[in-house]
Amino acid sequence: MTAAKSNSLVARLSAPPIPSVVAWGRDYKGLKGPLIDLSQAVPGYPAHPEMLRLLGEAAGQQAMTGYGPIEGEPLLRQAYAAHVTELYGADISAGNIHITAGCNQAFMCTAIALAGAGDTVALTNPFYFNHDTTLSMLGIGRRLVDCDPAAGFLPDLGSAEAALAAGAKMLAVVTPNNPTGAVYPPGLLHTLFMLCRKYGAWLVVDETYRDFLAEDYGRPHALLSEPGWEDTLVLLYSFSKSFCIPGHRLGAVTAGSKLIAEIAKVMDNMQICAPRSAQIAVASALPVLADWRAGNRLEIGRRADALRLAFSGLAGWEIAAIGAYFAFVRHPLADRSSSEVAEELASERGVVCIPGAYFGEGQERYLRLAFANADVASIGLLPDRLR
Amino acid sequence: MTAAKSNSLVARLSAPPIPSVVAWGRDYKGLKGPLIDLSQAVPGYPAHPEMLRLLGEAAGQQAMTGYGPIEGEPLLRQAYAAHVTELYGADISAGNIHITAGCNQAFMCTAIALAGAGDTVALTNPFYFNHDTTLSMLGIGRRLVDCDPAAGFLPDLGSAEAALAAGAKMLAVVTPNNPTGAVYPPGLLHTLFMLCRKYGAWLVVDETYRDFLAEDYGRPHALLSEPGWEDTLVLLYSFSKSFCIPGHRLGAVTAGSKLIAEIAKVMDNMQICAPRSAQIAVASALPVLADWRAGNRLEIGRRADALRLAFSGLAGWEIAAIGAYFAFVRHPLADRSSSEVAEELASERGVVCIPGAYFGEGQERYLRLAFANADVASIGLLPDRLR
Repeated sequence: MTAAKSNSLVARLSAPPIPSVVAWGRDYKGLKGPLIDLSQAVPGYPAHPEMLRLLGEAAGQQAMTGYGPIEGEPLLRQAYAAHVTELYGADISAGNIHITAGCNQAFMCTAIALAGAGDTVALTNPFYFNHDTTLSMLGIGRRLVDCDPAAGFLPDLGSAEAALAAGAKMLAVVTPNNPTGAVYPPGLLHTLFMLCRKYGAWLVVDETYRDFLAEDYGRPHALLSEPGWEDTLVLLYSFSKSFCIPGHRLGAVTAGSKLIAEIAKVMDNMQICAPRSAQIAVASALPVLADWRAGNRLEIGRRADALRLAFSGLAGWEIAAIGAYFAFVRHPLADRSSSEVAEELASERGVVCIPGAYFGEGQERYLRLAFANADVASIGLLPDRLR
Repeated sequence: MTAAKSNSLVARLSAPPIPSVVAWGRDYKGLKGPLIDLSQAVPGYPAHPEMLRLLGEAAGQQAMTGYGPIEGEPLLRQAYAAHVTELYGADISAGNIHITAGCNQAFMCTAIALAGAGDTVALTNPFYFNHDTTLSMLGIGRRLVDCDPAAGFLPDLGSAEAALAAGAKMLAVVTPNNPTGAVYPPGLLHTLFMLCRKYGAWLVVDETYRDFLAEDYGRPHALLSEPGWEDTLVLLYSFSKSFCIPGHRLGAVTAGSKLIAEIAKVMDNMQICAPRSAQIAVASALPVLADWRAGNRLEIGRRADALRLAFSGLAGWEIAAIGAYFAFVRHPLADRSSSEVAEELASERGVVCIPGAYFGEGQERYLRLAFANADVASIGLLPDRLR
């Protein structure tokens, strides 16, 4: 008799980070005032009542009980394709869209469709931790692309090219970035696209926080207008943040129709189809709640301003990068790890945020603050808490 | 400039099988009467109105919009643990349950948690095709365990032991079986469990169709009462079939708490948590709809009887195996592939079923009939259609 073993690639991963961070917050006794949760990216305002009505209505329908198409409900694929077409001034059809159960799943499906164990994928450092652990548990190698704190944590092009030249099959970036908040300018994204094309790699752009760009930002990039973009580019998106419905798990992949067919093979194995009723509800909400979403974008902008103000007078603290949803701040305690600082902030000062070390190598001096989670008044309490 | 390539492990997979089979049915002109769809496993009766009410009510709640616990809603984990405890006379707690978005996902999470690329997993032949393609796309090797048609397609123990002795990390079985319908007796399951334990392998039992066992069948097995079962056994389940809600995507893993923690790491990457509102609805429905589910079990039994009757006078056709949900029937056309036979049945005779070859090697003489999809009257039409 021999003890059965589990997969060492999974066993070596740490436990999922968010629950442990939330647990630190539970230790807070409330002595400094209400808990300020800047950990998991969850908009700190409720879903629109019409969104809830649509969700309830769709979920109660007999027509939603059966299996749906693997690639997603035609209504949502069409509605989202129309949205992407308008946003990017490009010609995107329903055949370019694959609906998933959230953006983590969009990334995992895409990663499996593009790379296998033994392949290498390039990630920025810092990275979104679930990108890293997804690759790691699948046995896909990682090559890190440096981001320069002095340049607002934008990726270094020489480092990116070195990763691609070394054979990375795909380069994954997140813009607006998680964890730093950095917004990658259109020109930078174009350069990364051309580099990927040069080396025969895929450029995967996670745009989960796209809807929180400043109102006057304009088009995030023009990559969907590049001839032959289908052979190089994949865009990932989440409906969770923008519609405040992460519990319903909905995301999307935008890609060439050939790659969509590959992703459908993966999704068939992973869950056959994304849950159906929320897809129908969001297809209706996408045009109807456009104004509400625009209003939220303004509100998130005010929160960013409030965060800048809060840190302006805080000796030793520095906002190293800030963008649509997150700020990556440098803490003053050079001799302490980011986990020690974050745990103490949570349990003793009631400010929950995520240690920089969770996002990559050499990030011990940083903390990720999901400022979009908290209202302006709560953000105004930060100077007293952090001093 | 080099063209970017996708993952060859995915590219080599065929397109998902169900949509292509459904397409054959669309070619049917209706000349022989209404289409009889015996392809995808979908109960041919509607969800209970109370199930729909609960789904609609939960989906409309603000409380369901946020992220939930990775492992699942405590209410559903507790309710399902209580159900498993009662069914198996064993002591199962919420900590032994991980909720997933359907049983395909339960399998994929479990496979990743237990095996990596380069490892080998044992599957019966025939197998459930998504088990095979899930392993294949992850680069996990497959070793087939023979099932003897003369023994009702139960797995051959010598063949199972050979696969384990050759180093398979896990043996996956489905009972009641998909595609054959074969119900594995408790003694056989115990032997497989002991074999897995002997060789340090995991026994993964997919019990998606468990609720459709005959009313007087008794406990499917006593494996949860084996001391130390947590180190060898994993049970998979689907709420889709029993509650007629596959579109809401809900399944469950039952395992030792240590393995649940490993699966949670995988699930965090795959989709953070299963969609929440359906979990709350099913937690309420589990006790409330017990009688309704028992009634459906009787109805499915009548459909099995109707199928036996339909084939009793059909020269050349033979029911090779039949069980809770499926029958595996031998067609009379020795010189034709199972795909040719199934396509002709669908497009010309309006009977949609799945070719045996989709489920493994050497299955060309067989077709899978999901008889639970059709009512007794429709099943009564089969002799005229197949003659």
